[in-house]
Amino acid sequence: MARFESLTHSELPSGIWRTRLPVRFGSCDPAGIVYTPEYLNLFNGVIEDWYGEALGLPYHELVGTRRTGLGYAHVSADFAKPSRMGDVLDVAVIVRDIGRSSVKLTVHAFKDGTECVRATFVTVTTSLVDHKSIALPDDMRLALKNYQARCDE
Amino acid sequence: MARFESLTHSELPSGIWRTRLPVRFGSCDPAGIVYTPEYLNLFNGVIEDWYGEALGLPYHELVGTRRTGLGYAHVSADFAKPSRMGDVLDVAVIVRDIGRSSVKLTVHAFKDGTECVRATFVTVTTSLVDHKSIALPDDMRLALKNYQARCDE
Amino acid sequence: MARFESLTHSELPSGIWRTRLPVRFGSCDPAGIVYTPEYLNLFNGVIEDWYGEALGLPYHELVGTRRTGLGYAHVSADFAKPSRMGDVLDVAVIVRDIGRSSVKLTVHAFKDGTECVRATFVTVTTSLVDHKSIALPDDMRLALKNYQARCDE
Amino acid sequence: MARFESLTHSELPSGIWRTRLPVRFGSCDPAGIVYTPEYLNLFNGVIEDWYGEALGLPYHELVGTRRTGLGYAHVSADFAKPSRMGDVLDVAVIVRDIGRSSVKLTVHAFKDGTECVRATFVTVTTSLVDHKSIALPDDMRLALKNYQARCDE
Repeated sequence: MARFESLTHSELPSGIWRTRLPVRFGSCDPAGIVYTPEYLNLFNGVIEDWYGEALGLPYHELVGTRRTGLGYAHVSADFAKPSRMGDVLDVAVIVRDIGRSSVKLTVHAFKDGTECVRATFVTVTTSLVDHKSIALPDDMRLALKNYQARCDE
Repeated sequence: MARFESLTHSELPSGIWRTRLPVRFGSCDPAGIVYTPEYLNLFNGVIEDWYGEALGLPYHELVGTRRTGLGYAHVSADFAKPSRMGDVLDVAVIVRDIGRSSVKLTVHAFKDGTECVRATFVTVTTSLVDHKSIALPDDMRLALKNYQARCDE
Repeated sequence: MARFESLTHSELPSGIWRTRLPVRFGSCDPAGIVYTPEYLNLFNGVIEDWYGEALGLPYHELVGTRRTGLGYAHVSADFAKPSRMGDVLDVAVIVRDIGRSSVKLTVHAFKDGTECVRATFVTVTTSLVDHKSIALPDDMRLALKNYQARCDE
Repeated sequence: MARFESLTHSELPSGIWRTRLPVRFGSCDPAGIVYTPEYLNLFNGVIEDWYGEALGLPYHELVGTRRTGLGYAHVSADFAKPSRMGDVLDVAVIVRDIGRSSVKLTVHAFKDGTECVRATFVTVTTSLVDHKSIALPDDMRLALKNYQARCDE
């Protein structure tokens, strides 16, 4: 059913940033599992934390203070196993591609050591002043490249 | 930037079901546009309405009374243009593939006659009693085929 | 258990604005009923529609174009009966108090003709430019008074 | 404007449980501040964590395994100051009243040491099998009383 080859924890690059994501009641639907659109909301929060903690670029400064839009041109997710209230997912972020004005990330969620959800987010950088596409800010590009290198080690 | 060839209204099959989706304040983010994960939530509501109105199979009866799980194995969305508070999107659903225990739908959102978001949802039918995969219920399969035929006319 | 004397439909003022609120899957929690915080989100959408349809002042123009903040100083809700997926609530809005820079609304949700949820929202008007309190705009005050009079008839 | 006398950190009981709540992009609205209904969602998550961490009764066991409904008969919130993306709120939970089949909690959110939001939640315990009211389970009552005593010290 899954459209991806599930990874195990040990197959992840050692330098990768990870976080723990507790599955709460309010994220679950009447089937008792995480409501599908809510995964995207939770992962968006993970990516936001990753900007600050792994890249050293707090998301609210990029978007709020510097008015750099980090909207998505594409999102997708594949689900191998459902997650239930009380589960604690282990989530990792990998940088896949760095373009002129876009970056492609994958988010990998693990339950009991096996990947249960994999999502892809393609962010495009825009100016929040005139909503036009802009090149990745230099410090963001550098931080993304450094993180990518760290994942290759 | 878009990963799809935007359709215009007139290119949609004439027999297709459509609904209007007003963009409200609570669906928008600090950038003033629809929060990306919220599109998936709004489209999930559209699909739910479509089950009742276009297929004649109220979603809450399938999921609630009959305990047929309609979870997703895959979701994706591509964004050509942002939507703002006060926009009213015109949204259509197309059946793409009907499998033994899965169905693939695309959701097309139009703003001022041009497609601004296209999403894909792959639903897998399960029993909500034991959470195992089950074949599409006969009446659901028939309704999906009838709708698909209606879209081809 | 309820903290309010439930009204029936026929006890509502005849001139009052009403809307229908279908309870969808995505609004429900693992207990199979509307997730409590989601009521506030749904009612916020009802209030937003009410601004445009009952007051003739589209919410997105007030907040977006005119930069009038309509934030809340207080919200509360009392629950007499749960609502389930597939229910269609009938919802009405009443203006209770109009102050210099605030307005108090109550939202009444009915299921099968009996009130099941009652909520109170106290909105304070601010400038979204400097986030300071401002008096209710004149046209908003007039529209609120007209609506209030209409409810008294 | 606030309907409560804001507390400072130092006025909180020393034995009280606290948690940190980062304000993320996805919790904020086009006015750039936390979307009001989202506060209730965030605080519901805080209460859920509090059940496990402060009472020693994981919420998902109470609701999921033991099928004890912890729905709300009443919620309310008063807002003294808005919170923005990037803020980290310090949040505390206090037990106010323990009834036969209900418990009243207040949630206090602090920003820079001053209370900015205060919410009240009245939970009623029900059986999720037949949705009838039940007395507070004995272990839950004991844990609530112990926590209350701890807050009085």
